[in-house]
Amino acid sequence: MSHPNHPLQPLIDQLKRLPGVGGKSAQRLAFHFISLPMSEIKKISEILLYTKENIKYCSVCFNISFLDTCTICNDPIRETKRLCVVADPKDILAIERARVFNGRYHVLGGLISPIDGLHPEMLRLSELVERVKKDQFEEIILAINPSVEGDATVLYITSLLKSFSVQLTRLAFGLPMGAELDYTDEITIQKALLGRTKI
Amino acid sequence: MSHPNHPLQPLIDQLKRLPGVGGKSAQRLAFHFISLPMSEIKKISEILLYTKENIKYCSVCFNISFLDTCTICNDPIRETKRLCVVADPKDILAIERARVFNGRYHVLGGLISPIDGLHPEMLRLSELVERVKKDQFEEIILAINPSVEGDATVLYITSLLKSFSVQLTRLAFGLPMGAELDYTDEITIQKALLGRTKI
Repeated sequence: MSHPNHPLQPLIDQLKRLPGVGGKSAQRLAFHFISLPMSEIKKISEILLYTKENIKYCSVCFNISFLDTCTICNDPIRETKRLCVVADPKDILAIERARVFNGRYHVLGGLISPIDGLHPEMLRLSELVERVKKDQFEEIILAINPSVEGDATVLYITSLLKSFSVQLTRLAFGLPMGAELDYTDEITIQKALLGRTKI
Repeated sequence: MSHPNHPLQPLIDQLKRLPGVGGKSAQRLAFHFISLPMSEIKKISEILLYTKENIKYCSVCFNISFLDTCTICNDPIRETKRLCVVADPKDILAIERARVFNGRYHVLGGLISPIDGLHPEMLRLSELVERVKKDQFEEIILAINPSVEGDATVLYITSLLKSFSVQLTRLAFGLPMGAELDYTDEITIQKALLGRTKI
């Protein structure tokens, strides 16, 4: 598949390393790039470098931000009584797209996974406890993926926060929209049955 | 889906304009980019700019190349009696992957398509005729997509070259590998039936 002498090969090799970009997509992208005017290429390069150079973590919630505190923490209209705990900044984007949560966030920076060398003290858990002490939240929603690591992290946070009088909740598990029962895995069906709701 | 205040939004907007990159892939790519070390980002940028700045068309076959003539035209081991005519430089990569053709190429730079404003004189057809006059090819393979524009181009080239004593051939049409008859469109089945071969 690789043509060491092809003039686009170095570019294709770089593009192939991106997530979700296979050999054929990398090739298509490379041909697309050389068809763009130089000004476009320069613009893409500049935005890439600028973003990388200036991005940092919000000092309050650890979301990514160009400023010391992120746009969500700085937003005076958002409510302050509800905190949503996520593993990663990209989870914030996913939840924001759903448009039903208007509170604050806290990014853990991963999930507990001793196998991958991710121990509780490497996550922003002491920072979470500090915020809970200070900010008097009414509810903390653990918006954490259903997985072994996710469950371990939820358990750990639950024990960390048990002395605080705050309502801990977790996202509902069940059938995703558009699911077909006969294509759905048995664990999801188990969760959907156990979590069944009244009509 | 768009978060105008999100620090990655300018980068996501740029990435979304690439072919085959939707909103979610653009987001995943953007998060991936900011997770890379600065040195990697610089390297990608440099390769992109270098490639765009230095790429040109081979003066013989119009394949893309860093040099005045491309690596295929410069390769003394490749045979010189067979010429493969393609619409686009990316078609050369696809044919090279198949590893059965060891001759030379000629890139037309498109297909005849009056609707899209692509007239015969805009393709590298006079250059093709010049090469055929000069290079004494035994066979010219028209490796051109089966489509209205492809068929029109094949017809046009056939009439252009009819005064030369060179064998013109075209790629075979039929079922692609792994095809299932009941999922195959009727035109392909027509072609596969009409082009049936003895066992």
